[in-house]
Amino acid sequence: MTNRNETSCTIVIFGATGDLAKRKLFPSIYNLFAKGELGPNFAVIGAARRNWSHETLRENVKKSLDESKTEINEDHLDDFLAHFHYISLDVTSKESYQNLNRLINDLEGEFNIPCNRMFYLAMAPQFFGPIASYLKSEGLTNETGWNRLMIEKPFGHDLPSARQLNNEIREAFREDEIYRIDHYLGKEMVQNIEVIRFANAIFEPLWNNRHISNIQITSSETLGVEERGGYYDKSGALRDMVQNHMLQMVALLAMEPPIRLTTEEIRSEKIKALRALRPVSGDQVDEYFVRGQYGPGNVKGNEVPGYRSEPNVDPDSNTETFVAGKLLIDNFRWAGVPFYIRTGKRMAEKSTKIAIQFKEMPMNLYYKTDEDVHPNLLVIHIQPEEGISLILNGEKLDLSGQTTPVKLDYAHTSTDKLNTPEAYEKLLNDAIKGDATNFTHWDEVALSWKYVDEIFNAWQQKKAAQFPNYEAGSLGPKESEHLLAQDGFHWWPLDW
Amino acid sequence: MTNRNETSCTIVIFGATGDLAKRKLFPSIYNLFAKGELGPNFAVIGAARRNWSHETLRENVKKSLDESKTEINEDHLDDFLAHFHYISLDVTSKESYQNLNRLINDLEGEFNIPCNRMFYLAMAPQFFGPIASYLKSEGLTNETGWNRLMIEKPFGHDLPSARQLNNEIREAFREDEIYRIDHYLGKEMVQNIEVIRFANAIFEPLWNNRHISNIQITSSETLGVEERGGYYDKSGALRDMVQNHMLQMVALLAMEPPIRLTTEEIRSEKIKALRALRPVSGDQVDEYFVRGQYGPGNVKGNEVPGYRSEPNVDPDSNTETFVAGKLLIDNFRWAGVPFYIRTGKRMAEKSTKIAIQFKEMPMNLYYKTDEDVHPNLLVIHIQPEEGISLILNGEKLDLSGQTTPVKLDYAHTSTDKLNTPEAYEKLLNDAIKGDATNFTHWDEVALSWKYVDEIFNAWQQKKAAQFPNYEAGSLGPKESEHLLAQDGFHWWPLDW
Repeated sequence: MTNRNETSCTIVIFGATGDLAKRKLFPSIYNLFAKGELGPNFAVIGAARRNWSHETLRENVKKSLDESKTEINEDHLDDFLAHFHYISLDVTSKESYQNLNRLINDLEGEFNIPCNRMFYLAMAPQFFGPIASYLKSEGLTNETGWNRLMIEKPFGHDLPSARQLNNEIREAFREDEIYRIDHYLGKEMVQNIEVIRFANAIFEPLWNNRHISNIQITSSETLGVEERGGYYDKSGALRDMVQNHMLQMVALLAMEPPIRLTTEEIRSEKIKALRALRPVSGDQVDEYFVRGQYGPGNVKGNEVPGYRSEPNVDPDSNTETFVAGKLLIDNFRWAGVPFYIRTGKRMAEKSTKIAIQFKEMPMNLYYKTDEDVHPNLLVIHIQPEEGISLILNGEKLDLSGQTTPVKLDYAHTSTDKLNTPEAYEKLLNDAIKGDATNFTHWDEVALSWKYVDEIFNAWQQKKAAQFPNYEAGSLGPKESEHLLAQDGFHWWPLDW
Repeated sequence: MTNRNETSCTIVIFGATGDLAKRKLFPSIYNLFAKGELGPNFAVIGAARRNWSHETLRENVKKSLDESKTEINEDHLDDFLAHFHYISLDVTSKESYQNLNRLINDLEGEFNIPCNRMFYLAMAPQFFGPIASYLKSEGLTNETGWNRLMIEKPFGHDLPSARQLNNEIREAFREDEIYRIDHYLGKEMVQNIEVIRFANAIFEPLWNNRHISNIQITSSETLGVEERGGYYDKSGALRDMVQNHMLQMVALLAMEPPIRLTTEEIRSEKIKALRALRPVSGDQVDEYFVRGQYGPGNVKGNEVPGYRSEPNVDPDSNTETFVAGKLLIDNFRWAGVPFYIRTGKRMAEKSTKIAIQFKEMPMNLYYKTDEDVHPNLLVIHIQPEEGISLILNGEKLDLSGQTTPVKLDYAHTSTDKLNTPEAYEKLLNDAIKGDATNFTHWDEVALSWKYVDEIFNAWQQKKAAQFPNYEAGSLGPKESEHLLAQDGFHWWPLDW
């Protein structure tokens, strides 16, 4: 199906000595190699400041495979490692890029690779602009094959900075050459949202405000900021999680059925959904959004300090480690249906989950007319469990004739799980094949920042938040419950 | 909730020495007693021809509890058995009824029971009329409490015989005093059809010909006719299974949402559904119905003889042991949606199951446009497993991006199962409480016979069926597959 010549390429990883390369990229490249997705004609160049040899890189790749528990076939490991080469590089030096270009040319000759070049920037975003610029000026982006730029979040810290970053990159790469990673879009069950909606005849007729009462998206962590205090304290949950992952999930759930399931059509519909988001103006922010910061508490049996005592965090920090929000999408399909999101650190459970709550029976005619019948729920389990549940009502197994919720489950079994490709593996594979569906278009980034900036600015203006306002190990501040309670709803449990 | 005085009663079992009493009724009565549903004021009278003592009956009750593996609390077993009394009775003798009446009166005094009387006829139907008549003439049906008649299938062998039987009974009992048992209506998951449809907001919008392509109801047995050859050879699958159980399930699936979930409203809607059944006239019978009779074969590893070699079966028998049919319901909701039914003996699996097949995506736009995406299916498992499955499409766990069917399951676990009340227990409990919802109204019986008689008569006219036409251990004759294939469908597997 895939033209081998089209996917044969050289992958240059900027920041190859770093954590992302070690934990995610090397194992993903190995798995693609082992599955035959890469073919025999490819090369991987690790580029970073340190003075490593090719051999040092290869040893580190091998170590990363071991540490990530990748299942290795020893028979072809040396063959695999022979494709890896290292170059020591100063990202601000013209000569470095000329050296890199020579190495690429050599390897293209050695491995018989067409001039297809994938530049993966596993580095801090301040280097994105300069690197892109040198890649173009020194002739590394070529005319005979394809050039693709893969970049990690964060993409700016607000709309102006993101726009500036984008302009810099766009001087060297066209929009369709830029693969902005949101690793949530590489997750099995996030990709399944599209399949659930568009490959199942029973859901699309129900997927609107006549049948859905609200949608709840939770992405909670039990961890604190760990060693990322310095970065996180400047970012916060709103910009670290909501601007990208949470809004991407909202867009996938809310978009209209695209004309075709192609990159362009899907992105176009996601963008339309984001455009339909009702902006939250400054004076309304407390009505729609809740921010929180954890104090000390107990997470899964361990006493943990509050956020302000974490390393590299300002002891008076006003940074939010929790956000809950109510999003409204002002179009025909969703008018009146709140999309509730919440995300936070040091919460009671590690869980990413979507609960689609269906409206109740008209007038609740039949069962327990004095109290509510349990609403139908479709739950998409994204991580750590992966699966789908549907909560229905059935008859109790006694003689009462009353109803009781019953849960229909589909879970990836642990056997399946072993074969589940990692998000990065899927995304790398997509990018090599030129499929940008699961990457973020600039328009999505811009719309998301625009939405989030208003909230952030409103919070900045009323600076003094009553922090800390939730205990580590809880489900966030009580205002998060109020947000739903005022609409007559409540958060569904995360262990469902 | 239930007024104890209203449920306190004397239960008279005609045919108390028989198989049904032993296997089903005694254990059910015990379970109702153990759960406190019967209260302290009740009596059970076993009536039959044999000369048993009260003690013999009690020993037999005890034995039946042991053999049916009923969980017994020894502490109150003697108390329970003390409520049982026996009377030897000739159903054609006036004196017998007078004796019985005296015994009832005595026990009503002894156990402080109001004059509520439940007459359970666990006997051959030819005795129904005479017994009912004597119960009235000898004053056993009284004016001060309630009188109820519970009767087992078969209720006649065609419409005229059923009507005659009904007329006889109706001379002594009002329609609302008659509880016609269809034990399928006592099954947990058959009762759940109503709950699935009317307590779940997501199904009713889909429950029509815009979203459902066809419905398949299978009730298959691995057993042959066993010791029932004499009866069965005169009846056949059409009259033994289709007229009652299969058409009842069709009615429950097809009925309009009733105004209330009361006996009268539900029955009224079921009757309307049966009235909307398109009659199959004689010359169309082969287009809509398939009959089969098993030859020798292998069922689950055992060689078994053909039907014509079974004990008490005519060696040239033309009786069908298998029926498949396509039923059309000519109303707004179901126009164009076939209800396929099949039932048979000596089939590959023992399974009663309903598969509701939803229509495919409009134009099948998105996935595998060259072949069909798997349709969504809702499967109701009635026996031996009990549960609900929903078959959806998800994304494959590889890098292909293709869809694959995924199955969401709810199964009663084995722990639950221990507590699942037997069908008879539920039906007895309903009848004692005066809830006739899960019993068959005369109009339903009449409409079902009317529908079935036409098919039977058509088959009688073209007497010589090509029997045997399916192997024991198969899924029936190949014509059963053709029935669906000509509409572009196929039977879904029974092990789903």
